[in-house]
Amino acid sequence: MSKKSKLKIIPLGGLNEIGKNLTVFEYGNDIIILDCGLAFPEDEMLGVDLVIPDTSYLFKNKEKIRAIVLTHGHEDHIGALPYVLKDINVPVYGTKLTLGLVENKLKEHGLLSSVKLQTIKAGDEVYLGAFKVEFIRSTHSIADAVAIALHTPIGIVVHTGDFKVDYTPIEGNNMIDIARFGQLGKMGVLALMADSTNVERPGYTMSERTVGETFEEIFRYCDQRILVATFASNVHRVQQVINAAVLYGRKVAVCGRSMVNVVNVAIELGYMNVPEGTLIDIDHINRYKNNQVVIITTGSQGEPMSALYRMAFSDHKKVDIVPGDLVIISATPIPGNEKLVSKVINELFKKGADVIYESLADIHVSGHACQEELKLIHSLVKPKFFIPVHGEYRHLKQHANLAERLGLKKKNIFIMDIGQVLELTEDSARITGTVPAGKVLVDGLGVGDVGNIVLRDRQHLAQDGLIVVVVTISGENGSVIAGPDVISRGFVYVRESEALMEEVKGIAKTALSKCEEKKIKDWSTIKSTIKGSLSEFLYERTKRKPMILPVIMEI
Amino acid sequence: MSKKSKLKIIPLGGLNEIGKNLTVFEYGNDIIILDCGLAFPEDEMLGVDLVIPDTSYLFKNKEKIRAIVLTHGHEDHIGALPYVLKDINVPVYGTKLTLGLVENKLKEHGLLSSVKLQTIKAGDEVYLGAFKVEFIRSTHSIADAVAIALHTPIGIVVHTGDFKVDYTPIEGNNMIDIARFGQLGKMGVLALMADSTNVERPGYTMSERTVGETFEEIFRYCDQRILVATFASNVHRVQQVINAAVLYGRKVAVCGRSMVNVVNVAIELGYMNVPEGTLIDIDHINRYKNNQVVIITTGSQGEPMSALYRMAFSDHKKVDIVPGDLVIISATPIPGNEKLVSKVINELFKKGADVIYESLADIHVSGHACQEELKLIHSLVKPKFFIPVHGEYRHLKQHANLAERLGLKKKNIFIMDIGQVLELTEDSARITGTVPAGKVLVDGLGVGDVGNIVLRDRQHLAQDGLIVVVVTISGENGSVIAGPDVISRGFVYVRESEALMEEVKGIAKTALSKCEEKKIKDWSTIKSTIKGSLSEFLYERTKRKPMILPVIMEI
Repeated sequence: MSKKSKLKIIPLGGLNEIGKNLTVFEYGNDIIILDCGLAFPEDEMLGVDLVIPDTSYLFKNKEKIRAIVLTHGHEDHIGALPYVLKDINVPVYGTKLTLGLVENKLKEHGLLSSVKLQTIKAGDEVYLGAFKVEFIRSTHSIADAVAIALHTPIGIVVHTGDFKVDYTPIEGNNMIDIARFGQLGKMGVLALMADSTNVERPGYTMSERTVGETFEEIFRYCDQRILVATFASNVHRVQQVINAAVLYGRKVAVCGRSMVNVVNVAIELGYMNVPEGTLIDIDHINRYKNNQVVIITTGSQGEPMSALYRMAFSDHKKVDIVPGDLVIISATPIPGNEKLVSKVINELFKKGADVIYESLADIHVSGHACQEELKLIHSLVKPKFFIPVHGEYRHLKQHANLAERLGLKKKNIFIMDIGQVLELTEDSARITGTVPAGKVLVDGLGVGDVGNIVLRDRQHLAQDGLIVVVVTISGENGSVIAGPDVISRGFVYVRESEALMEEVKGIAKTALSKCEEKKIKDWSTIKSTIKGSLSEFLYERTKRKPMILPVIMEI
Repeated sequence: MSKKSKLKIIPLGGLNEIGKNLTVFEYGNDIIILDCGLAFPEDEMLGVDLVIPDTSYLFKNKEKIRAIVLTHGHEDHIGALPYVLKDINVPVYGTKLTLGLVENKLKEHGLLSSVKLQTIKAGDEVYLGAFKVEFIRSTHSIADAVAIALHTPIGIVVHTGDFKVDYTPIEGNNMIDIARFGQLGKMGVLALMADSTNVERPGYTMSERTVGETFEEIFRYCDQRILVATFASNVHRVQQVINAAVLYGRKVAVCGRSMVNVVNVAIELGYMNVPEGTLIDIDHINRYKNNQVVIITTGSQGEPMSALYRMAFSDHKKVDIVPGDLVIISATPIPGNEKLVSKVINELFKKGADVIYESLADIHVSGHACQEELKLIHSLVKPKFFIPVHGEYRHLKQHANLAERLGLKKKNIFIMDIGQVLELTEDSARITGTVPAGKVLVDGLGVGDVGNIVLRDRQHLAQDGLIVVVVTISGENGSVIAGPDVISRGFVYVRESEALMEEVKGIAKTALSKCEEKKIKDWSTIKSTIKGSLSEFLYERTKRKPMILPVIMEI
């Protein structure tokens, strides 16, 4: 193109929500996708397993897409890959650990052989269509995270990905490359997109290393078995547990499917340093004394299928909690999981274990930048335009306020929503339209077949259960031949409510006779008559509104 | 009785759970009930409105009960009264505000005329059978809270109720009477039962007064309309909003049913001091400039039916949020409500309001004692035996640890469960048995008719919906006359899954023919055949497990 095109930035996820991060960068005939994550279902999405972004815009512009570029290996950044790659087969770029985790995922979906994975490392630059993608070393609660500088014909866009500024990370030399942010800032950055997760927290996020110090302190004085629950993907956290174990001569067993997976990948790819003879099989823990063992396990969020949950409720095949066990829950409950975590803590205490959790000791740090770190990045990058990303509206808004306080003009800050199109030139930016965006619900094998109607029905059923009324009528004259029969589920305990159910039958009968008298033969009228009289009766008697399902059979 | 009896302490609620506080004290032929609260349903209790204690033990021992004694007017201490008083009509003792709130509640249940309410004030002593009940001035997040000293023939039991140590409460002279705790301690206290809610928090809970200082600071610099959401029952919080409003010449409108109720009761009973002309009708707010108005509202927990929620989602009849409005959410989300509160905050920001919530300013303090306050009470009371109350197991356990660190012997500390009977003599205590205890679920008008079976059905329906298969068969030879018809709800979006539903029909048909061939006429066998083949087919095709409900009609 002789004349310069505009750069389009289109977030398809990660704004006004937590998770399913996916951003589209489009310039002329080239599209780059940054991250491809999933979200976990909201409370009202009953029965839904996970949520992925609506990517119909990508499908429509298939031939423009040059690559999917990943910042790190968390589910909210890579979890939608198997679903998107089924439709759109493009190369995927990421660091070694990130792609290691992606491989596992693609394997499970039987997609591994068909996808081209391109390993990059921090500092690398890759040319993709009109874009040059530069990967910048970053620090986060998973190893090998990168930020992105997207060099486009009209300027540089910096996207932080998820990050914190850790000056003393666990991998010695791999601190976040803040000098490069500064250098880019001096070159001139068109737009900054930065992580808003912790914008409400003043100060700095503590270094991952401080957690290791707490572990050492706890391990030193413990003469019992130690169990540590944490996020499987937090390779550095797991490394620090192993370090403390080695220091005090303990063996380490790993437990929980995802923990075993990640530890294997991390060791294989060289992200973990485990001295020979440290790891033992979970089946062999009883060969050692309790004070010679550490078990690293999943379940730090109280997930009911996790190893720690099953241990707490005596439902784990290999590990029984015994009095004196010291359980360290090295995590913060993600909003919504507080009660589950509490349930596990209560149960562990009841079994006689000692439990250390976040309100009692410094055994967890966040992976996201707090206010002072955000100010640092803004001041290094000094962008012309700013788009806060990764957060609910409250976080985006606070992040916008922070940028404003640092001197950026309000009109140069864009609090965007998913699906909005931001068009940038070398010196202007404005929202010019929208593309389809939203939530696609995954339930079992179904992708997108559960929508509002299905969810509304599930919510209705969950609330007060259901009553099915079945009747067989004559096709000739519409008279009732059999029934009405009444079946209920989730409404009342039927054995103790026989009288009520008999009354329900009577009401249905009366409604049917009324229709017969009036010679009503239209099924939908008959059904709504039954429904109306039953729901009125039931609400008056019980103040409940079960779903009422009249079924008519004709013979 | 010539020989002294044993004192029985039987908690029927409030241990290993949050809420539904109810403790039974029994000596010889006399029973006193301390508090009578409800709990809010757990997540898995789908459709349930509230939870009350199982009081069958009380019903069985009706004639022994001398009174219900209340510590304060929160729902988790008075909410089960209407249900218990229906079966057991005994006098109810409480302070003026507590009984004012109880009156409202009994009125709603049509019970007011039949119940004898006895107003007491802090410092009073009441003789009830073998007991002398002494009411001790306390401080909590509701006005007029008391602790209890129960003088029994074998010793004194001190129960703190919910409390914090506020040296500078809003009602000037009404600070917690810690001297009396000390005096009782010197007299000798047999057993202490104390609030464990905040035992995991080090230090002190800040005084309620500090919130007022923050309000004044915020009001001083605000030139917009102010809305404050808080708990309706926190009369002192509301008073402080009114104080700040008066100080800066603003009118106050009250919004939300429970807020209006409580403010009316509080003013009527003299618990609030509102200068003439301060309160205005919510219908008249538009007669004033925005910077002359404060609206006090319910909804600080993000409750979907509350006034603030409806304002945020433009669904409130009288108040529209306009850009510039300053909304103060003066509360902490109760565990489990975090997401709802966040939803409201996001929506208010989107409407252009400024929102101040707890992570941004000191606009809330807890009503419960932290570690240092608990240590103070323990050290004043110096009981022989200690029973931590009001909390999940983790809190009871930590509170037991705290008592032990203060010098109490482990064997003198009892972490109890509801229904357990602790028998005390002048110098011994042990758990001697159990009585029935548990959760009674209230759903609409039904009390106790929703149990495990109904809940399990609701959970099943919520998860994957349902499929109803209806068939009419001949009574003579068992042949299929009509159907099978298939209806589904909450399973898949039917319009887009017609092919699948046709297949389901086919599978049901095949199952029926198989039964016909084998001359199976037993309905339950036919039903389970249909169920089995359908669920296998559906799981394989969708990885979902809807409830399958076969219905057979015979003609």
